[in-house]
Amino acid sequence: MSARRSSRRSRVGAPCSWRREAGLAAIRDAGLEPYDIDGLVTYTVDENDELTLVRALGIPEVHYWARSPGSGYGACATVQLAAGAITSGAADAVLIYRAFNERSGRRFGQPFGTRSGRAPLDFHFTYGIDTPAKMYALWFRRYMHEYGISNEDFGRYVVAARRYAATNPNAWFYQRPITIADHQASRWIVEPVLRLLDCCQESDGGVALVVTSAERVTDTPSPVAVAGAVDAHVQGTSIMHNYYLPDLAGFPDAERCAARLWQQTGLTADEIDVAEIYENFSPLALLVLEAFGFCGRGEAASYIATGAIDIDGELPVNTHGGLLGEAYIHGMNTLLEGVRQVRGTATNQVAGVEHALVSSLSSAVILARP
Amino acid sequence: MSARRSSRRSRVGAPCSWRREAGLAAIRDAGLEPYDIDGLVTYTVDENDELTLVRALGIPEVHYWARSPGSGYGACATVQLAAGAITSGAADAVLIYRAFNERSGRRFGQPFGTRSGRAPLDFHFTYGIDTPAKMYALWFRRYMHEYGISNEDFGRYVVAARRYAATNPNAWFYQRPITIADHQASRWIVEPVLRLLDCCQESDGGVALVVTSAERVTDTPSPVAVAGAVDAHVQGTSIMHNYYLPDLAGFPDAERCAARLWQQTGLTADEIDVAEIYENFSPLALLVLEAFGFCGRGEAASYIATGAIDIDGELPVNTHGGLLGEAYIHGMNTLLEGVRQVRGTATNQVAGVEHALVSSLSSAVILARP
Repeated sequence: MSARRSSRRSRVGAPCSWRREAGLAAIRDAGLEPYDIDGLVTYTVDENDELTLVRALGIPEVHYWARSPGSGYGACATVQLAAGAITSGAADAVLIYRAFNERSGRRFGQPFGTRSGRAPLDFHFTYGIDTPAKMYALWFRRYMHEYGISNEDFGRYVVAARRYAATNPNAWFYQRPITIADHQASRWIVEPVLRLLDCCQESDGGVALVVTSAERVTDTPSPVAVAGAVDAHVQGTSIMHNYYLPDLAGFPDAERCAARLWQQTGLTADEIDVAEIYENFSPLALLVLEAFGFCGRGEAASYIATGAIDIDGELPVNTHGGLLGEAYIHGMNTLLEGVRQVRGTATNQVAGVEHALVSSLSSAVILARP
Repeated sequence: MSARRSSRRSRVGAPCSWRREAGLAAIRDAGLEPYDIDGLVTYTVDENDELTLVRALGIPEVHYWARSPGSGYGACATVQLAAGAITSGAADAVLIYRAFNERSGRRFGQPFGTRSGRAPLDFHFTYGIDTPAKMYALWFRRYMHEYGISNEDFGRYVVAARRYAATNPNAWFYQRPITIADHQASRWIVEPVLRLLDCCQESDGGVALVVTSAERVTDTPSPVAVAGAVDAHVQGTSIMHNYYLPDLAGFPDAERCAARLWQQTGLTADEIDVAEIYENFSPLALLVLEAFGFCGRGEAASYIATGAIDIDGELPVNTHGGLLGEAYIHGMNTLLEGVRQVRGTATNQVAGVEHALVSSLSSAVILARP
């Protein structure tokens, strides 16, 4: 797998140009040409038409295309799809992409309106739970209650993420670190759960990656192996939140991802050198750390407080600054940072990375040296 | 693979009930229970939410979900996706489904409005090409011109399809065969290409199928093997039509599907015993017969005129009556008829079927005895 993000800063532009720019960069980065690509994968929410992309990139023919149902929680699921296409012989080289104008176009953080067109969301809209922040906060609130977690605890994760972003020239918040006091001074979005600085950005941009077979990467300057890729959706969970299960303070989908990844790869949490975690809201970093067993249930706040997720810590987390600090390219940039860490080319490079975990809520991958 | 359609006649009802009814029937038909299912596949245009379906069916956990980008042309692509999920180990048993209220809800045959939200379609809408019939007719017209094909030639296919429907109690047009005179008396939809009887129905309904591994079908009373499954999209084609390629009178995507299927299975056109072909408009049956080499380019009309596609012909085609005669369940019922023919349980059963070809425009499968 190899990968490239299209541009470093948010700007107004058609998704069409992002996806083409990112797509071409990823293909070239993989040592391939557009005519080598015969598979396409993205999310169902992506608004770029496959056939238009095929023309824009000069891909002669596609033999596999698929979309992961939904949005950013499928970032790692796209790798599962692409890897499955390769393994089953449906395609030789799959381009994964996600491009959108989320700041200059439709802003995800704004109220969705009275109807989303999606049944389970509409049930909540009726009660005014009409933004991602509100939807997630209801779930996070239970987590706070159960384990005595405060918003300041979330803030300590944000300070760590912004520290990484501050040294990442690709990050929106480059050279703009924050203190816990800055975090606590930011306005409430959903009191007493989420402040402004707990919420990810709304960004314009595109990211693309290429997945191909081990046999094909001979031309790839710096390939990264997909050691494992999983997707997990437990009945009763909703991707956006956990409202209905007996254990409201946990994250069952992520727990199942962890269990399946350990099973698939034979690895354990101890063998993960760096973790890149999709966090459209800061508490998700804590919930995912617990779900993967990097610390016990309810212990992520103190784990973070000890400096465990910092660059010299036990498990550096979101070394690009996360979705909060770098940009919100729907988790695809989270995946990209995992690729960079294994390659050894990250701005905030962790020494000797053998295995990088990338988690995007209900899907996850482990990237490894080939 | 095993399969079941939910209901025999169109009626008003929530897609939710169709998909559950069809899903449960398919799972039971496969000798499985909902807890055996851990994968879900449908089209991106399907409006049923995966997590709601998981609850409705009682599926404990899903490890793979994907959508084929677009609509009915992905009917066979869903099998490629599901089979890839099984082969790659992502899932053990995948439920494929498509359920909609296309008659009582949004009618596909009506003008799309000024914008579809999908770039390539919008280019044509500007010129008033705003219904599927108009979009396809422009392409079919070139085919007619190139080979001297008349609307009456299309009519002969329709008469054959309606003859099959007339003896299929599941068909909307059960016991209602037509003559070529009836066809020629039906009103023009797009003169001089398509008459009313050349256009498929708008139907309400749901179809579901289960794809699982060869090892798992021990509990399946009547399994069918997926001998091959392909998807093909050539640059410059549009799924709905062929406007831009030098060869406007052919069907490049279907030709590539054929080439890949023969390569994948080692079979030839001569070894296909029955063909079920997605025909939202009658000319597609002709174009696909030619693309797969059952007859030469421009020869499908005379091939059909000789009775080749009838029940006692060389290659019975659309033995359920097709989308024109049975119902338009977006090609999933076309797939279902392929399953029935291999099982030997079709209403218009062809004797000794070893291999059934199912074509859904840009994707195709060959089903075989296990």
